[in-house]
Amino acid sequence: MGCRQSFRQCCDRPKNTNVRISLPAVCFVWQIVVIILFGIFIRYDQESDAHWAEYRKFQNISSDIENDFYFRYPSFQDVHVMIFVGFGFLMTFLKRYSFSAVGFNFLIAAFGLQWALLMQGWFQSLDPMDGKIKISMESLINADFCVASCLIAYGAVLGKLSPVQLMVMTLFGITLYAVDEYIILNLIHARDAGGSMVIHTFGAYYGLSISWMLYRPNLDQSKRLNGSVYHSDVFAMIGTLFLWMFWPSFNSAITDHGDGQHRAAINTYLLDMVIGHMVHIQNSTLAGGVAVGTAAEFMLMPYGSLIIGFCCGIISTLGYIYITPFMEKYLKIQDTCGIHNLHAMPGVIGGIVGAVTAAAASEGVYGKAGLINTFDFTGKWKDMVPSRQGGHQAAGLCVALCFGVGGGIIVGCILRMPIWGDAPDDNCFDDELYWELPEDEESIPPILEDNNHMRNRDV
Amino acid sequence: MGCRQSFRQCCDRPKNTNVRISLPAVCFVWQIVVIILFGIFIRYDQESDAHWAEYRKFQNISSDIENDFYFRYPSFQDVHVMIFVGFGFLMTFLKRYSFSAVGFNFLIAAFGLQWALLMQGWFQSLDPMDGKIKISMESLINADFCVASCLIAYGAVLGKLSPVQLMVMTLFGITLYAVDEYIILNLIHARDAGGSMVIHTFGAYYGLSISWMLYRPNLDQSKRLNGSVYHSDVFAMIGTLFLWMFWPSFNSAITDHGDGQHRAAINTYLLDMVIGHMVHIQNSTLAGGVAVGTAAEFMLMPYGSLIIGFCCGIISTLGYIYITPFMEKYLKIQDTCGIHNLHAMPGVIGGIVGAVTAAAASEGVYGKAGLINTFDFTGKWKDMVPSRQGGHQAAGLCVALCFGVGGGIIVGCILRMPIWGDAPDDNCFDDELYWELPEDEESIPPILEDNNHMRNRDV
Amino acid sequence: MGCRQSFRQCCDRPKNTNVRISLPAVCFVWQIVVIILFGIFIRYDQESDAHWAEYRKFQNISSDIENDFYFRYPSFQDVHVMIFVGFGFLMTFLKRYSFSAVGFNFLIAAFGLQWALLMQGWFQSLDPMDGKIKISMESLINADFCVASCLIAYGAVLGKLSPVQLMVMTLFGITLYAVDEYIILNLIHARDAGGSMVIHTFGAYYGLSISWMLYRPNLDQSKRLNGSVYHSDVFAMIGTLFLWMFWPSFNSAITDHGDGQHRAAINTYLLDMVIGHMVHIQNSTLAGGVAVGTAAEFMLMPYGSLIIGFCCGIISTLGYIYITPFMEKYLKIQDTCGIHNLHAMPGVIGGIVGAVTAAAASEGVYGKAGLINTFDFTGKWKDMVPSRQGGHQAAGLCVALCFGVGGGIIVGCILRMPIWGDAPDDNCFDDELYWELPEDEESIPPILEDNNHMRNRDV
Repeated sequence: MGCRQSFRQCCDRPKNTNVRISLPAVCFVWQIVVIILFGIFIRYDQESDAHWAEYRKFQNISSDIENDFYFRYPSFQDVHVMIFVGFGFLMTFLKRYSFSAVGFNFLIAAFGLQWALLMQGWFQSLDPMDGKIKISMESLINADFCVASCLIAYGAVLGKLSPVQLMVMTLFGITLYAVDEYIILNLIHARDAGGSMVIHTFGAYYGLSISWMLYRPNLDQSKRLNGSVYHSDVFAMIGTLFLWMFWPSFNSAITDHGDGQHRAAINTYLLDMVIGHMVHIQNSTLAGGVAVGTAAEFMLMPYGSLIIGFCCGIISTLGYIYITPFMEKYLKIQDTCGIHNLHAMPGVIGGIVGAVTAAAASEGVYGKAGLINTFDFTGKWKDMVPSRQGGHQAAGLCVALCFGVGGGIIVGCILRMPIWGDAPDDNCFDDELYWELPEDEESIPPILEDNNHMRNRDV
Repeated sequence: MGCRQSFRQCCDRPKNTNVRISLPAVCFVWQIVVIILFGIFIRYDQESDAHWAEYRKFQNISSDIENDFYFRYPSFQDVHVMIFVGFGFLMTFLKRYSFSAVGFNFLIAAFGLQWALLMQGWFQSLDPMDGKIKISMESLINADFCVASCLIAYGAVLGKLSPVQLMVMTLFGITLYAVDEYIILNLIHARDAGGSMVIHTFGAYYGLSISWMLYRPNLDQSKRLNGSVYHSDVFAMIGTLFLWMFWPSFNSAITDHGDGQHRAAINTYLLDMVIGHMVHIQNSTLAGGVAVGTAAEFMLMPYGSLIIGFCCGIISTLGYIYITPFMEKYLKIQDTCGIHNLHAMPGVIGGIVGAVTAAAASEGVYGKAGLINTFDFTGKWKDMVPSRQGGHQAAGLCVALCFGVGGGIIVGCILRMPIWGDAPDDNCFDDELYWELPEDEESIPPILEDNNHMRNRDV
Repeated sequence: MGCRQSFRQCCDRPKNTNVRISLPAVCFVWQIVVIILFGIFIRYDQESDAHWAEYRKFQNISSDIENDFYFRYPSFQDVHVMIFVGFGFLMTFLKRYSFSAVGFNFLIAAFGLQWALLMQGWFQSLDPMDGKIKISMESLINADFCVASCLIAYGAVLGKLSPVQLMVMTLFGITLYAVDEYIILNLIHARDAGGSMVIHTFGAYYGLSISWMLYRPNLDQSKRLNGSVYHSDVFAMIGTLFLWMFWPSFNSAITDHGDGQHRAAINTYLLDMVIGHMVHIQNSTLAGGVAVGTAAEFMLMPYGSLIIGFCCGIISTLGYIYITPFMEKYLKIQDTCGIHNLHAMPGVIGGIVGAVTAAAASEGVYGKAGLINTFDFTGKWKDMVPSRQGGHQAAGLCVALCFGVGGGIIVGCILRMPIWGDAPDDNCFDDELYWELPEDEESIPPILEDNNHMRNRDV
């Protein structure tokens, strides 16, 4: 504790909030690096390459409609809307931070997606023949997922970090995510179609740990801006609705063709309905889709989805009332958007539900082929049984938690350094630091003034 | 009339607007009931069940892409956007009722969808073998349609009912819809792909009848809030646009695979264009998609769509100018959103157009197979001829009208009881009754104040 | 110059801004004409006609899923969202012109789409057998594209033209577009999947030339309204995001089935990410999708997309800082939305990139079949080689430029006539001229007043 204290003091020098040079410089250098790496590593896969016609003939594929594009594209676009409109507008609720909410969300996503394509490519789809990463629609969806975890983390630190800090947070977050995902999905062989563990649990604890490391004891000096106004809340509803509506696409985007996608969409839809029922718009509504993430493609049964939604809605709502204030007061974790209620708890619940559902899977319910398809009991894992799969799912959840908390603490330390241009405690949640704002709403009256002027002229 | 008068007096006791306990209690109990019913009745159908791989082999289906999911999912998501963003934001035009517009829209939809899955399942897709309802993507779309009728009804009573009343209205509305739909589509064998009769005519007259039963003679005491401001109108445009743009998806979502979906989308699109041409944004723009609902999948011909759009635009616009004020003044029907112009009249027109188009169908235009596919002249109805089909369509329209008006009057009576927590006449259209509102727009200036404070400190 | 001057004087008589009669009259007459033309010319094509079942059997098509509807519909809906929500809300940034931005965007689109279906039909899909135009999903997408060019032109004249002028601009714009497109795609045989040349270059220079012809020397008298407020900027972000997100759909909507659509979507997506990285939200973010329009379906390679995005972002940003003010001051071109940076320059770059990429295409990269498919080296063009194709692409770009500038100047002359009801220089950018506006934001306080009233009553 003493050590942390002295580190804190070393970091708490006066801050320089000017990012006018550092931000473009970082972006510029970064973009050059990415372009070079893309030039070396990234190529189209056979479904998007111009050789598709030959490949199709060779593979005896009967029609162009079986190109993966037509299986994935509608879900992909929905996920894309969630990332940019959903997450972006969800965070516009602060009265004077809407530009930054949407703008930095955009920055994180655009920056993160490129890095994610590379990191996930190296870990998951490097072609051993030519050392290239072959990208397709599925890679883009996976990159969107990866970025979602960083946007969740952004929710915890909204209004408190500078854009340069956000880029550092994203850079490490994506890297950790790719490793974490590789361990959970490939080494441990846990299934996580909608990312309860990989995306939500990891992302939320990553953000909360960073927020903990960057605790601002005098944040109430910015209290005047840490709240909403009527119209900013309506903007936030746009984000909430788009996130919420497209949750079925999110959870079904990368599941197996056919029944897997169908079932994942139905499960998420049903659960969403219960959650929606709980009215706490902008808050607990989003918890449901998270909690069914892992189990979305399993045979959860329609009533199972409803029960999970019901429990999550209650837990998430209680979280807002009791846990968030408790965390802020006693654990020194300032969670601007309440991601602990929206993503962390539902994510953990989702992981547990996934483990239980997997352990309880039986051939009677799934059919022999269905069991193998759903849990991918093939190749190296062909002797796996559902009960052991349950254990692997639980192990996956633990890994996600460790990566989130551990990674967050380390990155938080880095971000405490006084070189990143973050706002002082009495100036958080304010667009003015980073954007040229238009004149205020109140200055519209000139119209009236001008009408007088015209009337005078008429006289 | 005297009887109605005395019933009114009995109901017009002072109102208690507190729903803080009754609303969560109703939701909680209701949700438990639904979960139990889902546990007993609802299962995946063969296209979303893990046995799909076996089913596919058994049915000799060549590819996963022929899973109904890929036929329906894009339309489904569009319909979903219409329900939540379209209807929700359409009603945000009131200056201080945006939270309730979006929030209660959400409540009705989430609540109604669950009940609709059960009700429609019992009537239409109960598996006689095991007594279970098998749900699929098509069930979800049908449930969305069902809920749309209640959201239309919500438009007539916007700002005047409490959330508990809205839930009662929805509960009965969904039930009536399911019966109504069963009679029209199954017993009478009318075709109604886009729901001109089943959804719009029924929904609109249901809402108008309720509004008539709940007539508030002193509503002008809330006049200060029954209007828009600049930005609330822009929010409403978001709703209008999303409803309007996705109308082709709405009308093609459950039509036949192949040419049916294709034609329904084109017809609606063309018609939309004419309507859009009429500029009365937020108003008549939406009438077109309604009017082509029934006939969308018929061979209406492109110019036919244009003519219908043209007529509807004119009628709907005239409706806003003449009929709505007339209805309010003389018929004692207060129609907040003008659903009579948007849904009731165009719905009736759509039903008539459907009847005429069906009666005029010929083998020359449709081809033999096309005629059978389009009108489903199979099984019990294999001897049906187009001219008789026209009669059945007309009968369907009458049934929809009767259910709407009759159901609305009965439910209106129930809702007059003074136990539901609705607002007094001088406090309608106000979010404050039901939501914790943020401080006002005007209170942003503190920023300036604080800048002064900082400047002082610098001194 | 002297001639232009005297023409100007002849036109600069006092203006009559009343369009209450002329606008509906023009719309009405126009709509009647279109309905008659539709009746004469437009029919369903075989994929949307009820004879599809027979056609399918005849053509030996194995499944309904191979109806073009399922290839195109998701992209079509995304393009539709771009046209109405994207373009519409992008232009809501002006503080008192949001109604007109969305409303006139709607008017142009709805009006233009009908005319585009006819014009493009006559030029491209007239059936020689029966003299009818056969429309399908692809026709609707093409019409959306056609209209996009007029909406781009609208960006340059936003706030300065009356709705009647906009309709004239659209009427000629669509006509020019159809001719231009026919020459470039059919006669010259250039490829332009995402329309860098046909849509963006043509549209932008068309709008800029009109704006030049209609130069208003005293426009700074409307300066008070030519700017944004906080919330109007947030609305504009909605437009930006929807345009930006769906760019991959725009560029892939009409490319070849299979790998072409897949590759176009990936290329645009990658490029978007770099651009997004540049943070200048609302501005340069949109330049990327434009610049990759022509080459989207080519084998541009992922890093190629990134490089184009990078350059375009820089050029577009510099354009806002240096070129727009220069154009206004010295070239007398007033470009309200900065379309020169968003569409004109990126469009030209896109055309050049397309020419270079086409010229550099080789059988090694594309494969023999791929080359033929991608560049459509069939029929009359079967002896074409990539290097000559590059020349044809360049020729296409020149044609687009000529049509844009030439057409714009002529139409600009027509629009200078003082009969169209445009606003005087001191009253531009104002909704009040054309819409009945609700009372002002400031007038909400009545709530407080009323609270007092209630408190008094309690006393």
